[in-house]
Amino acid sequence: MSVTLQLAVPYLVFLGDVPSAVYAKTALGIVQWAPEKCVAQHRFPDCEIDTGLTDMSIAEAAVAGAKSLVIGSAPVGGAIQENWIPSLLEAMAAGLDIVSGLHTKLTDYSVLREAAEKYSVRLIDVRVPPQNLPIGNGEKRTGKRLLAVGTDCSVGKKYTTLAIAEALQAREVNCDFRATGQTGIMIAGSGMPIDSVVCDFTAGAAETLSPDNDPNHWDIVEGQGSLFTPAYAGVSLGLLHGTQPDALVVCHDPLREHIVGCPNHPVPSVQTCIETNLLMARLTNPAVQCIGVSVNTSQVPKSQRQAVLDQISAETGLPAVDPIIDGVEPIIEQLIRLYPSQEHTQLNKTKDGEIA
Amino acid sequence: MSVTLQLAVPYLVFLGDVPSAVYAKTALGIVQWAPEKCVAQHRFPDCEIDTGLTDMSIAEAAVAGAKSLVIGSAPVGGAIQENWIPSLLEAMAAGLDIVSGLHTKLTDYSVLREAAEKYSVRLIDVRVPPQNLPIGNGEKRTGKRLLAVGTDCSVGKKYTTLAIAEALQAREVNCDFRATGQTGIMIAGSGMPIDSVVCDFTAGAAETLSPDNDPNHWDIVEGQGSLFTPAYAGVSLGLLHGTQPDALVVCHDPLREHIVGCPNHPVPSVQTCIETNLLMARLTNPAVQCIGVSVNTSQVPKSQRQAVLDQISAETGLPAVDPIIDGVEPIIEQLIRLYPSQEHTQLNKTKDGEIA
Repeated sequence: MSVTLQLAVPYLVFLGDVPSAVYAKTALGIVQWAPEKCVAQHRFPDCEIDTGLTDMSIAEAAVAGAKSLVIGSAPVGGAIQENWIPSLLEAMAAGLDIVSGLHTKLTDYSVLREAAEKYSVRLIDVRVPPQNLPIGNGEKRTGKRLLAVGTDCSVGKKYTTLAIAEALQAREVNCDFRATGQTGIMIAGSGMPIDSVVCDFTAGAAETLSPDNDPNHWDIVEGQGSLFTPAYAGVSLGLLHGTQPDALVVCHDPLREHIVGCPNHPVPSVQTCIETNLLMARLTNPAVQCIGVSVNTSQVPKSQRQAVLDQISAETGLPAVDPIIDGVEPIIEQLIRLYPSQEHTQLNKTKDGEIA
Repeated sequence: MSVTLQLAVPYLVFLGDVPSAVYAKTALGIVQWAPEKCVAQHRFPDCEIDTGLTDMSIAEAAVAGAKSLVIGSAPVGGAIQENWIPSLLEAMAAGLDIVSGLHTKLTDYSVLREAAEKYSVRLIDVRVPPQNLPIGNGEKRTGKRLLAVGTDCSVGKKYTTLAIAEALQAREVNCDFRATGQTGIMIAGSGMPIDSVVCDFTAGAAETLSPDNDPNHWDIVEGQGSLFTPAYAGVSLGLLHGTQPDALVVCHDPLREHIVGCPNHPVPSVQTCIETNLLMARLTNPAVQCIGVSVNTSQVPKSQRQAVLDQISAETGLPAVDPIIDGVEPIIEQLIRLYPSQEHTQLNKTKDGEIA
């Protein structure tokens, strides 16, 4: 039985009175990557932010089939706002779960807890990991896994893995995006808030997130942190060991000089990051390979962009792309070349006449 | 302000009805390593296990100055036993805190919670980390630190660090044993249950455990897990990064063939363990060195014991000792040679005539 978080779809995306797009990143991310999970948005009268979804009242959304109200606004301080409460209560009365990735928990509000019990709906704080996670065991699982790792935090691991999963699905490769952070979990509708897990269970939680699967199936696992962050490297290592990835993609910001929050810690080179991650990953998958580099070039002058990518590619011998500007096709090509699916292999063999 | 756990001493060591020494390991460990913290033991009439402490009733222990009743018995299942409750309540009424390292929490029992409030005493579950731990920052701290690491779990890290701290104290080196597990915390009277910390805070918790100190002061930090355990390597890495050790001691069991609980994961060589730990430790202390190897030879035939130690020493170029059989003096000598204290340096300089 799965012990990952599971959200009920489709969503009513709650914007409330969000004052600007900066604070609506969660809503915009959900609508960008999972429009098929969204039935409508709900805004207060003066709200000018628009995800492009149909506006609905809570009653209309319930009639339209919404199963969860997902809080898509992230105010300063990360707290549920008092003036949201009536909307949340109305949604619960209409049978919707409430889903939040905010810092303060839905379950900290007695008025919400009481309503959840009264209406038999769930309050889901996606930062709170599920109970009864197992200890990791390091046993080899079937199916294939790709994990994004990084030279630092906040270098595009979520975007990269979402883009890779989307591109593989477009090629009809059997795959799932596996979320490890709050926005990713809302996009996927399930997942594991890995950095909130008690550290004894981090690897076990990662094992739970990408269970046994068909041999040709790919789990595309959102990375967290970096082996080079003094604060979070343990999270990254537990995720690396528990995921037992076949393929790594390294994410990198070429203009970042030091680790976020640690001015005395320089960002490592991409090649150093690859070597260290491969060394540590071999504990649970000796066959692990790095298949590509995802580079955030948004702040690189346009005239230098290709040179930056070419240099990283030359240093590593791997495709290097900006996933937002270039897409991820060169990484997808590499993945399909290095890991031919059983069908592909058989087709090739048939072509070569080795199989009648 | 310290946010590590702090226990009130001296202890009344509670044995209750513990049936054999196997289940009294906690009590025996406390009395072995911290007899100065223990005022008495409390046993039920038929209990035959004896730590060597004076037997006292709870009333007598309170009069003798006991500040905490420490549960030294660890029954199968790790639960508080029903027939212990009257003794715990009596101790609380006499003003003693209750300290437990058992799996089930003291605070899960309403009868104990109510008594704690009534008598203004504390229920301290040493597996429960303190609140408000910081995120790690990787900043260099003053003072020196030694950390035990291992080729696997349960290879003598606690014993080794306790023995090193005791030997340094015997030489009047300014040092503290820093506990990271439940028995260690009871022995030290303070500490951090590192493997129960939410993984985002593991390194920050380790930073908190060994704060800034005098330049000649040594924190001797109890290790946890191993970078080679698929389940717990993330814990070990967070502890390694947060401790920012100057010196590592590797603990090893030469007869263990695979990682505990992971039959498909062989135990690494001592040299591989040293290299991987040094590589990862340099992130927060580029000057880190490995200074010795602690080997559990209890199951090695007596005729082969010295050969095993000599081989490890030849392979690593480091002193290799069984701390229980040989003591840790060769490691202490190495530490004092590699890290001369300021006083030592000045004395040497005076001898050489460089300082008048």
